[in-house]
Amino acid sequence: MSGKAPEALVQSAADWWTTEIIDIHPGEIDIRGYAIQDLIGQISFPQMIWLMVRGDLPSAGEARLLEAALVASVDHGPHAPSIAIARMAATCGIGLNNAMASAINVLGDVHGGAGQDCMVLYELVRTELERGGELPAVADQVLAQFISDHGKIVPGFGHRFHPVDPRAAPLLGLVESAAKDGTVAGGYVAIGREVEAALRRRTGKSLPMNIDGATAVIFSELGFAPEMGRGLFILSRSVGILAHAWEEMRVRRRMKGPMPKDIPFTYAGPEKRKLDRPD
Amino acid sequence: MSGKAPEALVQSAADWWTTEIIDIHPGEIDIRGYAIQDLIGQISFPQMIWLMVRGDLPSAGEARLLEAALVASVDHGPHAPSIAIARMAATCGIGLNNAMASAINVLGDVHGGAGQDCMVLYELVRTELERGGELPAVADQVLAQFISDHGKIVPGFGHRFHPVDPRAAPLLGLVESAAKDGTVAGGYVAIGREVEAALRRRTGKSLPMNIDGATAVIFSELGFAPEMGRGLFILSRSVGILAHAWEEMRVRRRMKGPMPKDIPFTYAGPEKRKLDRPD
Amino acid sequence: MSGKAPEALVQSAADWWTTEIIDIHPGEIDIRGYAIQDLIGQISFPQMIWLMVRGDLPSAGEARLLEAALVASVDHGPHAPSIAIARMAATCGIGLNNAMASAINVLGDVHGGAGQDCMVLYELVRTELERGGELPAVADQVLAQFISDHGKIVPGFGHRFHPVDPRAAPLLGLVESAAKDGTVAGGYVAIGREVEAALRRRTGKSLPMNIDGATAVIFSELGFAPEMGRGLFILSRSVGILAHAWEEMRVRRRMKGPMPKDIPFTYAGPEKRKLDRPD
Amino acid sequence: MSGKAPEALVQSAADWWTTEIIDIHPGEIDIRGYAIQDLIGQISFPQMIWLMVRGDLPSAGEARLLEAALVASVDHGPHAPSIAIARMAATCGIGLNNAMASAINVLGDVHGGAGQDCMVLYELVRTELERGGELPAVADQVLAQFISDHGKIVPGFGHRFHPVDPRAAPLLGLVESAAKDGTVAGGYVAIGREVEAALRRRTGKSLPMNIDGATAVIFSELGFAPEMGRGLFILSRSVGILAHAWEEMRVRRRMKGPMPKDIPFTYAGPEKRKLDRPD
Repeated sequence: MSGKAPEALVQSAADWWTTEIIDIHPGEIDIRGYAIQDLIGQISFPQMIWLMVRGDLPSAGEARLLEAALVASVDHGPHAPSIAIARMAATCGIGLNNAMASAINVLGDVHGGAGQDCMVLYELVRTELERGGELPAVADQVLAQFISDHGKIVPGFGHRFHPVDPRAAPLLGLVESAAKDGTVAGGYVAIGREVEAALRRRTGKSLPMNIDGATAVIFSELGFAPEMGRGLFILSRSVGILAHAWEEMRVRRRMKGPMPKDIPFTYAGPEKRKLDRPD
Repeated sequence: MSGKAPEALVQSAADWWTTEIIDIHPGEIDIRGYAIQDLIGQISFPQMIWLMVRGDLPSAGEARLLEAALVASVDHGPHAPSIAIARMAATCGIGLNNAMASAINVLGDVHGGAGQDCMVLYELVRTELERGGELPAVADQVLAQFISDHGKIVPGFGHRFHPVDPRAAPLLGLVESAAKDGTVAGGYVAIGREVEAALRRRTGKSLPMNIDGATAVIFSELGFAPEMGRGLFILSRSVGILAHAWEEMRVRRRMKGPMPKDIPFTYAGPEKRKLDRPD
Repeated sequence: MSGKAPEALVQSAADWWTTEIIDIHPGEIDIRGYAIQDLIGQISFPQMIWLMVRGDLPSAGEARLLEAALVASVDHGPHAPSIAIARMAATCGIGLNNAMASAINVLGDVHGGAGQDCMVLYELVRTELERGGELPAVADQVLAQFISDHGKIVPGFGHRFHPVDPRAAPLLGLVESAAKDGTVAGGYVAIGREVEAALRRRTGKSLPMNIDGATAVIFSELGFAPEMGRGLFILSRSVGILAHAWEEMRVRRRMKGPMPKDIPFTYAGPEKRKLDRPD
Repeated sequence: MSGKAPEALVQSAADWWTTEIIDIHPGEIDIRGYAIQDLIGQISFPQMIWLMVRGDLPSAGEARLLEAALVASVDHGPHAPSIAIARMAATCGIGLNNAMASAINVLGDVHGGAGQDCMVLYELVRTELERGGELPAVADQVLAQFISDHGKIVPGFGHRFHPVDPRAAPLLGLVESAAKDGTVAGGYVAIGREVEAALRRRTGKSLPMNIDGATAVIFSELGFAPEMGRGLFILSRSVGILAHAWEEMRVRRRMKGPMPKDIPFTYAGPEKRKLDRPD
C-alpha cells in the first residue's frame, strides 16, 4: 500500500465520503443538523427538498413558490419522450424504479435543460443590469449574443404546441404576489417579461414565456443555481413519469413499442445483397 | 400493410397512446380533468402526486400523511448504494439527470422494495382478519408462512444500523392522530404493531418497526397498492439522490471511485500465466 | 469507529472490493492471470468475453459458437422497445452512453429474459433425463409443469412476427456441426427439438424454435448459467442499440416522441371539472 | 386531427421510424441488405459491429484492428466508477441488465469520453497538416490551442496510475503492421506519436500515450467518427461491467455500499439544531 500510517488510511477512507447533508448514528438521523423526528409532520415536502439541497429551511412564502413550480411541471403527455419511454419500459418486465430511471435519464439538455438554460439567460441579463445597463436595451443585447452563441431556439419562450402555455401566467402571478409581500425581490419577473418583449422585437413573432421561462423566473428569484433548476424539474417530472409507468403496468401490455403492430417501419437502406466471400 | 382502412389505422395509432391522466390541446392542459392553471398555487405537491397517481384529490388530512411519509424517506447517507452511486456518477462528466437515473435505477427489490413487501405482508394479515381471524394469532400464522416463503429477513422490521429507527415513531404517531379524527380507519397501525410483537415472540429478539414498516402502514391506510408504495419511496429518495449528486458536483472531483487511491483492491484470481498458443 | 485495529480496518477496506477478474499494478494489467499485452491482437473479442465472464479461455470451436450467437441477436428493428427507446433518447440532448443505458435497462424479464428462461426450461428437461427419464415423455411432462407454473407463453418458441424465425436454423446447424466434431456434447439440440415437438403435440400449433430458443441451446451447450444467457444477449443487443442511437443522432431531430405530431394521443380520463375548494 | 388525408397520416407514422440498418418481413431479417442467415457463422462479431454501425463490411485486416481495440478496453478494475457502480447495483435486487445500465450510464465525458476527445485532437492536427503544415510544428500549435480551450488534462496521454499504460504499445504495434500491409494509411500513428512528443516538449514531463490515445489512433485510422469512438469503447467496457456485476451477484452480498460497515462516513455539516417554529 501507500506510505501512510494505517490510522491515516482509515481516516482517508472515512473522509472519502464526506457530506454536509446528513449525519447518522445508531438511533439518530440528522438532516442538516435537524433531527429527522423533528421534521416529520412538521415541514412540507418542498421545505424538505429545499433543506436537503440548500442547507437551510425556506420561509413559508419561498416554499409555496417552489411548490407551485413543482406542481406545474409534472407532465406533458404520453408523446413526450420521457413519458413514452417510461410507458414502454414498464411493459418490458422490469421494476417501477427501472422504468422511471430509463425515463429520467433522458431529461437532458434538450428535454430537461430548457429551464436551466433560461436561468443562465436571465443571469446574463441581470449581470449586465448590475453593471449599469438598463432594460430593454440590455435585453436586446444579451438576447442577440445568446442567439449568436446558442442558436435561434431561445429556451423559455414559445412552444411547439401551445400558442400560449397555460402554466406560465399562474406562475408569474404567484411571483408577482410574492414580490409585493416581500417574499422575493421580483427583479427576475421584469427580466423575463423584457426578454419576451425583446424576442418579439427581434423576430416579429409572438413567443410568449412558457413553463420553462416561468419556472426559471421562480427558481432564479429563490436563489437556486441554474443546474439545480434542472434538478427541481426532474423531481417534478418524475411524478408524471411514475404515474404513466404505473398506468401502463396496469394495462399489462407486453413489449409495447412506439406503434401498433399494424403500422410497419420504413426501411431505407441498401437493397438485398450477398456476401462477397465468407469470412 | 394490414388490411385495415387508413382511417382505422390512424385511430389505432392515436389509441396506442391512451391515457386517463392528462389531456392536452393548444393552450390547454388538464390533469385528470382539472385545468392546470386551477391547480398551480392551489394544491400542494403531495396533493398533485396523489392526483396524478390515483386520479382524484385527497383530503387535506390524507395529503398530510402522504407528505410526512415523503419527508421521512429522503436520505440515509452516502454509504447507501443509491446515494454512493449518485455521488460517483456525478463525477463522470454526465448530467444531473443521468447521475440521478443511475441511482434511482437501483431502488430495486432489496434497496427499495422493503416498503412494498411490507405492505404485502400487512395485506395478508388483513385478508385473514376479514375471514374472521383475530390478532395476535393471525399475525403469528401469517408471519410464519411469510418467513417460510420469503426467508427470515422480514421487511419493515429491524434495521442493520438502528436499534430503534427514529423515523418510525413520529410516522406512527401521525397515523394514530389521523385515525382519531377519522382521516383514516387505523386498522393497519394495529396490524403493524402486532406483526412487531409476533416477530418478538417468534425470534426472541426485538425487531422494532423501521421506516419501511411505518411508511407501509401509512400507504396501506391511504389505499395505495404495494407497488405504488415503492413508487412513492422512489419520489422521496430522489430528493436525497439529487442533493448528494449536487453536493459531489460542486466538490468537482473527477472520476470518484469507492475508495481513496491509497487503498488498493484485493485480487483473488489466478496467478500470472501465459497463453498456450496464440489464437 | 469499531473496535478493530487500524490495520485490520484498512485490510477490510481493501478486501471489500475483491475480485478474481483483474489485477492492476503500475504498468501492469492482468486479466484472469494473463497480461493484457499478451491478449491484445492474440485473442478474439468473443474469447475475451468468455475469459472475463468464465475465468478461462474457450477453445476455438467454443468461441465460434459464442460468436455466432452474439452476431445473431444484435437487432430486431426500431419498433422493439429497446431500440425505440435508444432512438428517442438520442434526440434528448444526452450522450451516446446515456441513450444506450436507457435502452439496455429495459432488456428485462419480458424483453431480454426469454433466452434465460428457455435455458431454465432446457435444464429442467436435462435434470429429468439424468434421473433416467427419456425424451419425448420427459419433454411432455416438463413442458406441462412449466406452463402450469409460468403461463402459456413458452420462451424460445414461436414468434409474434415470424412464422419461422430465420435466425434459428443457422444457429442450430452450427451447434450440430460442433457436436459432430466434438466441440460440444450436443445434448441440448435434442432437448430443444423435442420441446418444439412437445409444444406441437400439446397445442396443435406449430411454434418453431426462435432466436431465444436457439441461443439457449448454444449457451447451454457452452456451459453458461441461464442468467449469463441474458448477459450475453445484452452484449449482443447493445450493438443494435448503439447503431440505432447513432443513426438517430445524425438525423438530428430534437425531442423525438413515438408518433409524428400529426397524430394525437387519445385521452380517456375524466371530463373537465373544477376544484371543490382551493387547498 | 391535422388536415392530412388518412393515407398520408399512416405513411407519416410508418416513416417516423425510418432506418437504413435493418429490414424485417415475416421470416426475413436483413441487416444492411444482407440476410441474417448469411451472416450467422460467416462473419465475426467485430465485423457485425462494423456493419451495423457503418453500413458495409470491413476488410479482414480492418476487422482485426477493431477487434484488438475492443479486447483492450474491457476493464480497469473494481475501483473504476463504472465497475464499482455495476457491482453495487448488482446487490440491490435488480436484473443484470439494470446493473449494467446504471454503469454504462456513467461512461460520460470524463469516464468514457477521453478516446472521443483524443480523436478530435488528432483530427485537428490532421486538418492542419492537410492545409500544408508539418509535424512537429503543427503538433505544438494544435496542442497549445487545445490546452487553452479545454484545460491541461490532455485526453489520450499520461495515466493516473500507470507510468506506462501496458495497452498502448501492443495496439500501436498492430496499427503499424496494418499500415505496412496497406490495411490502413498509417498517418494517425505519426500524429499520435508527435502529440506525445509535443506534450513532453511543452510540459517537460513524460506523458506516454495511454489506452485512449491508442484506441483513438485505431478508430481514426479505421474512419470512425469521434463520437463512435465513445460508442465502441462502451461496447468494450460493457464486457467488464457484465463480468463484475455477475461476480458480485454470485457473492450474494445484499446492499453493498462503497465501504465495509466498520468505516463510517464523515459528517461536515451544521451542528445539531432545532426548528424555530413548526411549519
